[in-house]
Amino acid sequence: MRTVDIIQKKRDGLELTTEEIRFLIEGYTDGSIPDYQMSAWAMAVFFKGMNARETADLTMAMASSGDQIDLSSIPGVKVDKHSTGGVGDTTTLVLAPLVAAAGVPVAKMSGRGLGHTGGTIDKLEAIPGFSVELTEEQFTRQVTEQGVAVIGQSGNLTPADKKLYGLRDVTATVNSIPLIASSIMSKKIAAGADAIVLDVKTGSGAFMKTLDDSIKLAQAMVAIGSEVGRECVAIISDMDQPLGAAVGNALEVQLAVETLQGNGPKDLEEVCLTLGSHMLVLAGKAATAEEAVSKLQELIRSGAGFRKFKEFVAAQGGDSSVLDDPTRILNVKEVVPVVAEQDGYVASITAEEIGVAAMMLGAGRETKESQIDLSVGLRLRKKSGDAVKKGETLADMYVNNTGSVEAVKRKVLDAYRIVSNPVEPDPLIYAVITKTGVQKFV
Amino acid sequence: MRTVDIIQKKRDGLELTTEEIRFLIEGYTDGSIPDYQMSAWAMAVFFKGMNARETADLTMAMASSGDQIDLSSIPGVKVDKHSTGGVGDTTTLVLAPLVAAAGVPVAKMSGRGLGHTGGTIDKLEAIPGFSVELTEEQFTRQVTEQGVAVIGQSGNLTPADKKLYGLRDVTATVNSIPLIASSIMSKKIAAGADAIVLDVKTGSGAFMKTLDDSIKLAQAMVAIGSEVGRECVAIISDMDQPLGAAVGNALEVQLAVETLQGNGPKDLEEVCLTLGSHMLVLAGKAATAEEAVSKLQELIRSGAGFRKFKEFVAAQGGDSSVLDDPTRILNVKEVVPVVAEQDGYVASITAEEIGVAAMMLGAGRETKESQIDLSVGLRLRKKSGDAVKKGETLADMYVNNTGSVEAVKRKVLDAYRIVSNPVEPDPLIYAVITKTGVQKFV
Repeated sequence: MRTVDIIQKKRDGLELTTEEIRFLIEGYTDGSIPDYQMSAWAMAVFFKGMNARETADLTMAMASSGDQIDLSSIPGVKVDKHSTGGVGDTTTLVLAPLVAAAGVPVAKMSGRGLGHTGGTIDKLEAIPGFSVELTEEQFTRQVTEQGVAVIGQSGNLTPADKKLYGLRDVTATVNSIPLIASSIMSKKIAAGADAIVLDVKTGSGAFMKTLDDSIKLAQAMVAIGSEVGRECVAIISDMDQPLGAAVGNALEVQLAVETLQGNGPKDLEEVCLTLGSHMLVLAGKAATAEEAVSKLQELIRSGAGFRKFKEFVAAQGGDSSVLDDPTRILNVKEVVPVVAEQDGYVASITAEEIGVAAMMLGAGRETKESQIDLSVGLRLRKKSGDAVKKGETLADMYVNNTGSVEAVKRKVLDAYRIVSNPVEPDPLIYAVITKTGVQKFV
Repeated sequence: MRTVDIIQKKRDGLELTTEEIRFLIEGYTDGSIPDYQMSAWAMAVFFKGMNARETADLTMAMASSGDQIDLSSIPGVKVDKHSTGGVGDTTTLVLAPLVAAAGVPVAKMSGRGLGHTGGTIDKLEAIPGFSVELTEEQFTRQVTEQGVAVIGQSGNLTPADKKLYGLRDVTATVNSIPLIASSIMSKKIAAGADAIVLDVKTGSGAFMKTLDDSIKLAQAMVAIGSEVGRECVAIISDMDQPLGAAVGNALEVQLAVETLQGNGPKDLEEVCLTLGSHMLVLAGKAATAEEAVSKLQELIRSGAGFRKFKEFVAAQGGDSSVLDDPTRILNVKEVVPVVAEQDGYVASITAEEIGVAAMMLGAGRETKESQIDLSVGLRLRKKSGDAVKKGETLADMYVNNTGSVEAVKRKVLDAYRIVSNPVEPDPLIYAVITKTGVQKFV
């Protein structure tokens, strides 16, 4: 088998065999196939695509390119959740304890990542004492006993994906649906998921800007799941404005607590209930999504979800009393309000600008070496559709580096578009995609 | 300027600026842009193409990536000729002395190359004593005094093209007309040509298999010429069967002599007259192609072309008396005829199989390290359209390695398709492409 022939075959729009895809990925992982052939192949895939079978083969070849987590000793269906990323996404912090309280085992491996805030791992580390360094044995024992554990990514998971993603990033081959879909799914499968619920964000603040593309990506991932025997459900959710009300690490812990106590922002709660309900159904803990939503609402009402959050934090060495008063971890020099400069209604909030503003405050990493300030960030007080009066607070800035205040304020004001007439906010959930089809809500 | 943005721009079908193309080629040449970005860009070009302006910019960026030959001290218009390659192409050996005899200065830098036979340099070295190692001063003096000199490629000519071609070869990005056109033209321009006559081969034995693609390639090169102020004419000539009658190094010297003496195969003579006539017109030595053909025919009839060949060989240290009896350089152990196995007419001769047969005899290089046997090769005795009787010779094999005889004979017989009814041979010249348009002859 010659790599150049495989590139040419894809370039000419032909279907690659399972063996050809495996040859490519194994060769790329072990270094026998050079970057310059993989990037040419990736560009050919950009133009010619891959069918469901090829995409599934690529996924499995990447999933098996390194270590694979074996969760089979944990009883039950291990359902993982993945979000394609956006601004102010606090869903994992809410869902991990909430679905665990419903009896779904949550064995989550999470990253730090680059972005507007840290990853789930960073957010949890805002809680004093919380440790993400568990041995494999501690990890599986905790999931079996407590129902939930979150650890940092360790070992050599999907090295092929890591290498290929780095290459795509510098060769303009990121925006290819089969390549995105296989990248996401390979990581979930290598991390041991039996079933996967996907939250595909759509809109100006999301990777996928249009509903059409978001649905295509969701369908590609659900199709991979079908091909490889991991049931998948995807929802398409709005990212035209930030989700929830917090962009920052400790601030998101606080918001997760509020949400688990039933006092969170309605949009965050709705997305969590939708994602959580599909997790329960896939895990066999509810017959229908509607039944699952009722169960989750009851777990919030009864406080069982919040109690599970405290147990989970304590089990991993964290000071769970912080969750009773999260303001204890918001140790900033100043909280500075950004106030409306006119009366009106919030027509939109550009998610990306809010994200950049949070990063300017120090909440996220620009490069792998950046230090995160876990306490800083933004708390949004107004969302799309809300009425505002001149002088009223749009958002609070949690600041340690006071030199950045004016620039961040400007950024936040730029993000808010205020109009004089009432505005209907965007829908929140656009569609649910399962292996049987697409259910659209708009 | 970021390379990834340039790749993306081309990927999205946009036109690159002169600065962007120069940035790419300079960066690739100096190593600051890695192979994996160039191969992704080349694949994007494969799919999205380049317009005439971009292609011309790429050509000039590659032409100026290394040394450039300055022929300005040689009086007259320096017209170069390039063939896209085929099997049995002896045109350079005929044309160099013939157009020189007509007063066109021929200052040719030539290669060894890989292929069915050696390059022009190897063929000339079949003449004892012939040297291709001239200093720049010797070279220009010889062209000025004798009208013709041929030297081996020296120095660091178009390193960008060399590097990019090597990369395209292993990334399935060879077959892109703007990339092929700019590669050829950059080399000719760096070698100092004022004007260029191109021989684009078409058919089963050519790089371009269809007339359509051949015309497109010719048009792309002529357009580059217009953009960069080097007048170009291209002819499209047949390569469905080998051109001429010899595939081998010394054998082609012999055939060139026969052709310069007026006894060569008609097809080779016609292609040489056509190419040569356009060279004369571009050099200002004839007003029309028809007038130029008459001049060249007269130079053959009078023996002036052949005399120029002898002067040229002598000037470069070669034993010109060999040209009076070229059989002296055909020192092989055996000449073995391949005879027809049935009566009939030659319907076609697969050029590629004849080429491979010559290579099996040792006439060409498979890798850069291969040793060429300059004496061996094939002399075709029958061409398309000819009638043959069972037992009559189709071709003679000039053999040193007698172990290969049976396999080569089989290959030659496979190449000849003999049918029972008379056959009209393919046309030889399909079209002439100038900056004013395409003139088709079929």
